[in-house]
Amino acid sequence: MSELSSLEASVADAVDAEALVRSAQRLVRIPSWNGEERPAQELMIELMEAVGLEVDAWEIPMSEVRAHPDYAAEIDRKAPLGVVGTLRGSGGGRRLLLDGHVDVVPAGDLTLWTHPPFEGVVEDGRLWGRGALDMKGPLMAGLYALDAVRRAGASPRGDVHLLSVVGEEDGGMGTLAAILRGYRGDGAVVLEPSELRVAPAQAGCLNFRVRIAGRAAHGAVREEGVSALEKLFPVYRALQELEEERNRRLGGDPLFARYRLPFALCVGTVRGGDWASSVPDHVTMDGRLGIAPGEEPEDARRETARALERAASRDPWLREHPPTLEWWGGRFLSARTELDHPLVKSVHGAATAVLGRTEPLEGMTYGADMGLLVNVGDTPTVLFGAGDIRRAHRPDEYVDVSDLVAMARTLAVTVLRFCGSPSGSS
Amino acid sequence: MSELSSLEASVADAVDAEALVRSAQRLVRIPSWNGEERPAQELMIELMEAVGLEVDAWEIPMSEVRAHPDYAAEIDRKAPLGVVGTLRGSGGGRRLLLDGHVDVVPAGDLTLWTHPPFEGVVEDGRLWGRGALDMKGPLMAGLYALDAVRRAGASPRGDVHLLSVVGEEDGGMGTLAAILRGYRGDGAVVLEPSELRVAPAQAGCLNFRVRIAGRAAHGAVREEGVSALEKLFPVYRALQELEEERNRRLGGDPLFARYRLPFALCVGTVRGGDWASSVPDHVTMDGRLGIAPGEEPEDARRETARALERAASRDPWLREHPPTLEWWGGRFLSARTELDHPLVKSVHGAATAVLGRTEPLEGMTYGADMGLLVNVGDTPTVLFGAGDIRRAHRPDEYVDVSDLVAMARTLAVTVLRFCGSPSGSS
Repeated sequence: MSELSSLEASVADAVDAEALVRSAQRLVRIPSWNGEERPAQELMIELMEAVGLEVDAWEIPMSEVRAHPDYAAEIDRKAPLGVVGTLRGSGGGRRLLLDGHVDVVPAGDLTLWTHPPFEGVVEDGRLWGRGALDMKGPLMAGLYALDAVRRAGASPRGDVHLLSVVGEEDGGMGTLAAILRGYRGDGAVVLEPSELRVAPAQAGCLNFRVRIAGRAAHGAVREEGVSALEKLFPVYRALQELEEERNRRLGGDPLFARYRLPFALCVGTVRGGDWASSVPDHVTMDGRLGIAPGEEPEDARRETARALERAASRDPWLREHPPTLEWWGGRFLSARTELDHPLVKSVHGAATAVLGRTEPLEGMTYGADMGLLVNVGDTPTVLFGAGDIRRAHRPDEYVDVSDLVAMARTLAVTVLRFCGSPSGSS
Repeated sequence: MSELSSLEASVADAVDAEALVRSAQRLVRIPSWNGEERPAQELMIELMEAVGLEVDAWEIPMSEVRAHPDYAAEIDRKAPLGVVGTLRGSGGGRRLLLDGHVDVVPAGDLTLWTHPPFEGVVEDGRLWGRGALDMKGPLMAGLYALDAVRRAGASPRGDVHLLSVVGEEDGGMGTLAAILRGYRGDGAVVLEPSELRVAPAQAGCLNFRVRIAGRAAHGAVREEGVSALEKLFPVYRALQELEEERNRRLGGDPLFARYRLPFALCVGTVRGGDWASSVPDHVTMDGRLGIAPGEEPEDARRETARALERAASRDPWLREHPPTLEWWGGRFLSARTELDHPLVKSVHGAATAVLGRTEPLEGMTYGADMGLLVNVGDTPTVLFGAGDIRRAHRPDEYVDVSDLVAMARTLAVTVLRFCGSPSGSS
């Protein structure tokens, strides 16, 4: 169905673009990073209630969530809030989850931002700021899609749950907590930036930490020591070679055809040494390793360990003092949903009808909550959202307002198509 | 005079080795790093009083010291203690300063220490621990040299001031404060490890900071960003080349003949990135650059800037985003004292007589308070101390107890030779 029914058209038209943008601005203004997500979740409760959703807000029982084998987090949260808003269906239809996160990554160097990251500036038809794209804007598109369905009086047969989650960026503990509270569905849409393409596949990723040892010495006689920073260089090169080799071998999937490195290895932080005038005796690198759909994480871990061993074997110091490898914090399972699943067809058809063009299906290279929904929640899932992930995690993050509105319209139509239109309507 | 007079021999014999070691152990047990020097200074006051020195202890007026053009510090101290113990002379002789610092560098990775760094273990004839060598042991050798002179009843003609200073490791603010309080002399011995060789020359050093910019991006699409860590590699290589070139050009001084790199450039710390799965948009390196005696620091600064410019010119990204260079914190002036100065002769002669062998004069490659004493305090200075600087700033720092005792004996004899023996004695 690449055209909208009249009911679908009226639901799409009911999307309140102004309210969507205003609420997204309010959410961007809350710097919800490093586990400081409560004020953002409280705003989500307020907004869900304002649009007439049933709200389930709870203190996440961390001891229970931490005990789950797929728990992964870099930040130790005390008692974060889980928030789910439900549009109750009339009964008999499929249950749909919309999943979006309120947490954001840090803003980095503030001087690189044209618009301050936490002011929610709207300019040139774009919402600017940390989280505008990833994914406070898209989360609001989900909320105002349900608002549109409700205000158009078109309540679907199946229930729709909007999951507003914390902790996505550091491993997905918020979505895991929602699954453990019972939120599973016949399908789920994770509202991540996908350039309004439907993504039935998602790479996974594993966070790693490499520690390299040196030998300290007074900087004035530095050759008496061994600089851990200098020993980082060959280890880094080994990781680059590993990335090339893995992507050559695993990168054939047509859903990922546009990416040279769909399963990227990125070193994100480096820390070493204690004193400017001492030879540094330790350096630590933290990074992420992309995992292909269908790849066993354990295989990827083993390959990485072997790459480090090879690098160490070529250097006399590293041979005696091999780098250590640890897998920690963020961990995203890769996932895939069959291309002919009703969820894929519903979202893809709705997008085609709303956008007036057929976008290809694509795989997304970043880890996201799809992995948990599919692998833990047994819920077939796609990623679908406004904007380009390449604008995320960097300065001048933005999302086009028109894309947010198109996204909300597509989601509203998806609700009708996937959960079932009200009985008797056409 | 390569033999001891009978008075000198009795003074040398009066060194209380047991008390020296016990007091050094007590001082090592105080972890006096990162500006936390007050308890160590309070112990020095107690010990100076116990051996009968006149003690001048004062709160250093930081606003005055900070205003001096040669003030340099990495740590912002509030109101540190200055402590000077004086052995008052009978009049008419040269004034001698002995200068030792109580601050230490951090202990680094504790697992690398055989003996805990702050327990002051004595084993195998060695005192072990952070600061044992650099320079709590040698400072105690200075104190017990004066104790020996006093107990032998051999008070010299000139005054001797033992300066117990803070803040040496991060730039020498304690010695600067003592100079500003009026402590200058006809000669000074800085009690730094010199393997009991007399060092009438000292390299200087300047602390630098290099900041390298990248462009952040989500780690899953890392090629959209530019890793500041990857851009560090060519910058680091340029610094290595600069070090080689400078040492080839400046390293001809025979006092420094034993060192391949007398004026070493050492990168001591590296910090970059905020998030494991983001491309790091900034990396900072801190390091030290060795300065040759007689070299203008400004020339060295300019050469370093040019080396970075050359590295940047070879890389398209760095050309547009050149690394920034800052000179900060620790800064040690280089210095030299004429080889035929009475101070050099007194210490060298005393060492030869006490040790029973003639050690060569040598230059020391590390920055120390000699630079301030010579350049600001107009006081001809040598470095002289027990132990090997190559054991400093690393795990398992130690000093041989027998060397500490030989050092104390040499200093006691030096006092008589430089400041003048009591009138009437031989």
